[in-house]
Amino acid sequence: MASNAFGKLFRITTWGESHGKAIGVVIDGCPAGIPLSNHDVNVALVKRAPGQTPYTSPRSEPDRAEIYSGIFERKTTGAPISIIIFNKDSDTRPYEQIKSLLRPGHANYTYTKKYGTFDYRGGGRASARETACRVAAGAVAKKILEKSGIQVLAYIRSIGDIDIDYSRFKDNEIDENILNSSIFCPDSVSENHMIKAIEAAKTAGDSLGGIVEFLVFNMPSGLGDPIYEKLEANLAKAMMSLPATKGFEIGEGFHAARMKGSQHNDAFTNDHHQPTISNHAGGTLGGISTGMPLIGRVAFKPTSSIQKEQDTVDYQGKRQIFKLPLGSRHDPCVAIRAVPVISAMCLIVLADAVLLNRCAMIEAG
Amino acid sequence: MASNAFGKLFRITTWGESHGKAIGVVIDGCPAGIPLSNHDVNVALVKRAPGQTPYTSPRSEPDRAEIYSGIFERKTTGAPISIIIFNKDSDTRPYEQIKSLLRPGHANYTYTKKYGTFDYRGGGRASARETACRVAAGAVAKKILEKSGIQVLAYIRSIGDIDIDYSRFKDNEIDENILNSSIFCPDSVSENHMIKAIEAAKTAGDSLGGIVEFLVFNMPSGLGDPIYEKLEANLAKAMMSLPATKGFEIGEGFHAARMKGSQHNDAFTNDHHQPTISNHAGGTLGGISTGMPLIGRVAFKPTSSIQKEQDTVDYQGKRQIFKLPLGSRHDPCVAIRAVPVISAMCLIVLADAVLLNRCAMIEAG
Amino acid sequence: MASNAFGKLFRITTWGESHGKAIGVVIDGCPAGIPLSNHDVNVALVKRAPGQTPYTSPRSEPDRAEIYSGIFERKTTGAPISIIIFNKDSDTRPYEQIKSLLRPGHANYTYTKKYGTFDYRGGGRASARETACRVAAGAVAKKILEKSGIQVLAYIRSIGDIDIDYSRFKDNEIDENILNSSIFCPDSVSENHMIKAIEAAKTAGDSLGGIVEFLVFNMPSGLGDPIYEKLEANLAKAMMSLPATKGFEIGEGFHAARMKGSQHNDAFTNDHHQPTISNHAGGTLGGISTGMPLIGRVAFKPTSSIQKEQDTVDYQGKRQIFKLPLGSRHDPCVAIRAVPVISAMCLIVLADAVLLNRCAMIEAG
Amino acid sequence: MASNAFGKLFRITTWGESHGKAIGVVIDGCPAGIPLSNHDVNVALVKRAPGQTPYTSPRSEPDRAEIYSGIFERKTTGAPISIIIFNKDSDTRPYEQIKSLLRPGHANYTYTKKYGTFDYRGGGRASARETACRVAAGAVAKKILEKSGIQVLAYIRSIGDIDIDYSRFKDNEIDENILNSSIFCPDSVSENHMIKAIEAAKTAGDSLGGIVEFLVFNMPSGLGDPIYEKLEANLAKAMMSLPATKGFEIGEGFHAARMKGSQHNDAFTNDHHQPTISNHAGGTLGGISTGMPLIGRVAFKPTSSIQKEQDTVDYQGKRQIFKLPLGSRHDPCVAIRAVPVISAMCLIVLADAVLLNRCAMIEAG
Repeated sequence: MASNAFGKLFRITTWGESHGKAIGVVIDGCPAGIPLSNHDVNVALVKRAPGQTPYTSPRSEPDRAEIYSGIFERKTTGAPISIIIFNKDSDTRPYEQIKSLLRPGHANYTYTKKYGTFDYRGGGRASARETACRVAAGAVAKKILEKSGIQVLAYIRSIGDIDIDYSRFKDNEIDENILNSSIFCPDSVSENHMIKAIEAAKTAGDSLGGIVEFLVFNMPSGLGDPIYEKLEANLAKAMMSLPATKGFEIGEGFHAARMKGSQHNDAFTNDHHQPTISNHAGGTLGGISTGMPLIGRVAFKPTSSIQKEQDTVDYQGKRQIFKLPLGSRHDPCVAIRAVPVISAMCLIVLADAVLLNRCAMIEAG
Repeated sequence: MASNAFGKLFRITTWGESHGKAIGVVIDGCPAGIPLSNHDVNVALVKRAPGQTPYTSPRSEPDRAEIYSGIFERKTTGAPISIIIFNKDSDTRPYEQIKSLLRPGHANYTYTKKYGTFDYRGGGRASARETACRVAAGAVAKKILEKSGIQVLAYIRSIGDIDIDYSRFKDNEIDENILNSSIFCPDSVSENHMIKAIEAAKTAGDSLGGIVEFLVFNMPSGLGDPIYEKLEANLAKAMMSLPATKGFEIGEGFHAARMKGSQHNDAFTNDHHQPTISNHAGGTLGGISTGMPLIGRVAFKPTSSIQKEQDTVDYQGKRQIFKLPLGSRHDPCVAIRAVPVISAMCLIVLADAVLLNRCAMIEAG
Repeated sequence: MASNAFGKLFRITTWGESHGKAIGVVIDGCPAGIPLSNHDVNVALVKRAPGQTPYTSPRSEPDRAEIYSGIFERKTTGAPISIIIFNKDSDTRPYEQIKSLLRPGHANYTYTKKYGTFDYRGGGRASARETACRVAAGAVAKKILEKSGIQVLAYIRSIGDIDIDYSRFKDNEIDENILNSSIFCPDSVSENHMIKAIEAAKTAGDSLGGIVEFLVFNMPSGLGDPIYEKLEANLAKAMMSLPATKGFEIGEGFHAARMKGSQHNDAFTNDHHQPTISNHAGGTLGGISTGMPLIGRVAFKPTSSIQKEQDTVDYQGKRQIFKLPLGSRHDPCVAIRAVPVISAMCLIVLADAVLLNRCAMIEAG
Repeated sequence: MASNAFGKLFRITTWGESHGKAIGVVIDGCPAGIPLSNHDVNVALVKRAPGQTPYTSPRSEPDRAEIYSGIFERKTTGAPISIIIFNKDSDTRPYEQIKSLLRPGHANYTYTKKYGTFDYRGGGRASARETACRVAAGAVAKKILEKSGIQVLAYIRSIGDIDIDYSRFKDNEIDENILNSSIFCPDSVSENHMIKAIEAAKTAGDSLGGIVEFLVFNMPSGLGDPIYEKLEANLAKAMMSLPATKGFEIGEGFHAARMKGSQHNDAFTNDHHQPTISNHAGGTLGGISTGMPLIGRVAFKPTSSIQKEQDTVDYQGKRQIFKLPLGSRHDPCVAIRAVPVISAMCLIVLADAVLLNRCAMIEAG
């Protein structure tokens, strides 16, 4: 079953394994006439790169993406854009040692059940490395949205038990704050607490979960489609297709379930720049954008790869102790590195929605 | 943009407005050879029907669905199954009074922005009435899953601030408990508190949010596909495509973000009936089912239609007071009526996943 | 497998069997703002109706379609348009007599092989009756194309060995000529010969094949997409999805294979209304419309249902004689009734292409 | 609009331009467990390579494809298979000279109309070079079909006015005959005439059209789906998506339109290996395979690039003479090199049909 593609008119297909020769993405359906260069893509990838902070795994230098097709005279042509990121040579020997064991929290068990085989080297296709391709595609989607002024932000909302405090920064400071944060946290006070918690977890051979928030300014109204293609439904699928995600919410999210209608309803105004006074809805009504900022959150489980020993069994069903091989390195909190990926998925969903919306009314063409 | 369809091999397309002649669903891709009758569909619809409990709006008698195609000699033939539910004659006059106003929490503003028009009679296509078609399709999906023994349950997890208490019932009692509950609540103690809270909200002209939980027993391993078609990604999209939903989670969900890896990881066992000791993951790893029960939750906002007066504007931007017309009735808590719809969407996602899984390995055919 | 839908943005899903209660089509993705009524659809259906001419089977009065959804204040709303045509009560007894026999040229053998069952009453889902739904959808597609002035024609090009002679009529007479022809033939001289040939075949208990030509005026350039979604590729699929079709060609078609490059190449001009001097290509280059008229042809086999006795076997493999039951009526030449269906499929493909083309360039939105 | 992908469960996405760095294909949905190597792909590409015969353009050595993902321990894993073919360095200067002219029979006009730009170097994305990716994907599809014994053949049926004569070879000789033919022609007598005709056309600075026939042995019954996904509809789309195709037919094709029902109908037998005595239908009834050999034809126009001077205009509308730049080489008959591509598209359609057919009946799983 073809499961490596996302989007309708702006459609991405990704390929490649963690320890294969390369990974890549083909973007099919990007409109012609958009200025695009390798640099645009690599800027986005640098943000995501491992080793950027002490709190993500220090594996190596940043990825270098190259555009192989779809560009002529520095602009998109309407042809598919193939972007390839060559993998560095990796030592697959550590994975040999554990290949016969079911890894707690990992996909080797389920892939083997489904496919009868599993490329255990670095997790193969199940590796989070695939998300680099999403970031690359997001950089292209961003270009589609640029003219409309849509601005997508994503940042750490919480790590473990530590939440950010909105009173400590303004909306227009978020972008700069996360640029200056080693963990994409807009609130520097919380950031310090988070870093300590991460270090403590690491020392203990353990890991932490976290929540990433996305926030979109300058949203036009009318994006998203009724019933099965609601904007939040596509965002939910986009986000829940990321590794390690356990939850998605928009606006007040799960908190809305504890509110009253008189509290939750957003009163309409006659201000075109801010159609409702409050924004409990999070930017959509009936699955279609209102024009208010889009806001939502994605929950990440704590990293499954931990240094602590864990009980497990091998493929023959014999009880075993699972221990990470020496030299293997993993992020103590996957939510951090997921931040640019959340941005990317948001950009991809919105670029598709913008294109689809050109066909809502007969007079639009 | 075609946005009224869901599913890949088992694909549903729904149509119809709240106050039109009829609503319906076409199921394309149902395998041949499944015994199916009108009765199968109507049993599912009765559960969903308004007026079943004092706590959902007492509008009318249950819907009656009829299968118009795809059946021969009482079995499916592989041809599309068209199911139609004729609407009762409805008085559209109450909606005339408020047609010029933006309804807080409703889709009339966004639909008008997108389409330049809105069928305001009962909310038109944006009405939750569309979900009856999902329930009808779910009844067909259920038949596909029957042979494998997969059992889907959905029930109220919380209403307002009141949660169920798992210590008060056993897993195998859930099905019967919710059958006996007027609000699909498996815990009769909590049920009483919930009912009082609903009555209080109703008296106050207000409404409550709630959380619905879904739980699937006898799950096979191997369902769901890697990367963009993860089982939880499709469930998330399915659930977030329902009206009034604000959040989705699987397994520990947002709570996972506050856990440590050593707590969250589920240790593998050598028991084929229970591959892991705990089930924090909620039944999937890497987007593919483990064989453990599938469990997740969907958050519903409080009903937008409340009796209290609300500030709004009209389409000309003039400030107005929004007041529900006399005689209009609405559920004080939409989560309750959503319970059978959550079941239905779960069944639809799983039926599609079961069919898609037939193509995972070459030797399967 | 979901196989009853066609189109991407303008997407139709059809349902229903020849002798079921009704047949219908759901159109998902029609833009909002298009004036549309039952009358628009029924006008198109009348053209297709059996019994319109002595040379199609005189089964009954015309079908009556009704729009069940997607219209508000006489215009499309962007919601799915459900159109239903109720079947007349039909006597299924004739089909009982032959239900155990493999019908030469019919689908009962292949459907039974694929699905293990076959609704033999009137051919069930395999009946050409399904094409009425395509005609209904075509009437809606026509409305999308109206503003652009695109005009789709279809007519009989040949029946048996008799071809039309282009020298006997002008392009601008085609529309009126076929309106006055009982067999959609634009050349009245050939028409007479064709009618005689049909009558002779009928008398002999036999049937004739035929070729239908489609011709589109006022084509804009730029419709269709490169590589797999070429305009002619989608037209070919559309046409070859009709019952009894055996071939499709565009422009010079199979004759092009006998031409030289210097003959076939169309020289470009600087006249925007006629970009090339000749039109051997038939209106596309590289899968994208040039702006020249679109022209192509579809080959229909002779009707499989003939009065002559035929050798066959029954489902148990025993040799039998197949003889049509008394009272069963069939067109001696299916190509005739296919003419309005060819128009409809052409309209549907073009409406989809027009919508998709809104997303070719970034500045279009 | 995403237009570079084909297939449903076995889905290919191609990318790359004639004179870019590379071209490639991503195959998404290939089942796990299939032995696959670079060699399998390169064997198929060698057959297609330019310069194989004096009658296709002698541009260069064969392409070398490399599989970049989706393989582990020499077998497919269910992950996407990315195949890349690096382009040789090409001189793009000849194309500079003609970049301002509309090329007769080429896509530069229509691409420019659609996208506002055109990568003129070697035809960019519109180049037939893209078909190498189809051949690569076809080699993978072939592996899926291998177990079932399905054998796909394609060969030259005619070039210009010269047709093959079936009386000169037997079915089981076709495969070897075309291996020994420099133009994929199974009839050596006709081959000689064809070669002379090609040489004459070349000398005259002209080109020839041709017809390619495909023939599939050991077809199972039940492949293909009713209504819009008929096997012949998907084959027609597959073939008409190839550059330079002008027509498609199955079985008797356009000749069927001149036959009588009593001639065309294939009588059923009780022989499972040959369900009908004759095979005018060409292997399907109602869009589903009968189990008889699948047979059909594809018409190719004469190569548009000819050495003769041709009238045209430039993008400013000024009349010009189009003359191919010195040193540019083109096949005098594109049909020849299309033969392996026709095989490939046939394999791709059938592999998808085989997978989709696993879901026709409930008991199949």
